[in-house]
Amino acid sequence: MAQLVVMYKTPKDPAAFDKHYFEIHVPLAKKTPGLTKYEVSRGPVATPAGPSTYHLLALLHYDDVAAIQKALASAEGRAAVADLQNFATGGVDILIFDTCPA
Amino acid sequence: MAQLVVMYKTPKDPAAFDKHYFEIHVPLAKKTPGLTKYEVSRGPVATPAGPSTYHLLALLHYDDVAAIQKALASAEGRAAVADLQNFATGGVDILIFDTCPA
Repeated sequence: MAQLVVMYKTPKDPAAFDKHYFEIHVPLAKKTPGLTKYEVSRGPVATPAGPSTYHLLALLHYDDVAAIQKALASAEGRAAVADLQNFATGGVDILIFDTCPA
Repeated sequence: MAQLVVMYKTPKDPAAFDKHYFEIHVPLAKKTPGLTKYEVSRGPVATPAGPSTYHLLALLHYDDVAAIQKALASAEGRAAVADLQNFATGGVDILIFDTCPA
């Protein structure tokens, strides 16, 4: 299993972000080939010491890193990445990795 | 469901980090009350543009954020947090959030 973790920093207008994210971006990301599970954070993203700089985290699951690379290179993946500029006004950090049980 | 995501920046000695992490830290973290699933990254943590600044990510699952706060406040959680200084020489970012399906 592998994950594409998309970490959205707090945007200029969180309400507008949420509307665009759930109405436009989630349907685009769901079309990427190989996606097996798609989770998002609900409520605040915190740290042990208090609030974080992140507004929302998205955890997209694929079979392996090769599948993530294929998804990002696909037309659907390119459309989802291109959509980021339409709402991710706080910036975004993206991490890609294979996972295994600890 | 909720996750405690521990993001370890590249340490000074990755081999020593890995040895301590899997031999000492994982057993400590597994003792925290309420832990339901524990995944780690396997291999490099990348970004779409290339390598990331992270060496390893740990994804610890609990029922909700309240369970994570209880776990961190427990004797077992305090022992796991105190152990970080013994191996996390690159620094660590920790995020806590509830999750739901997108």
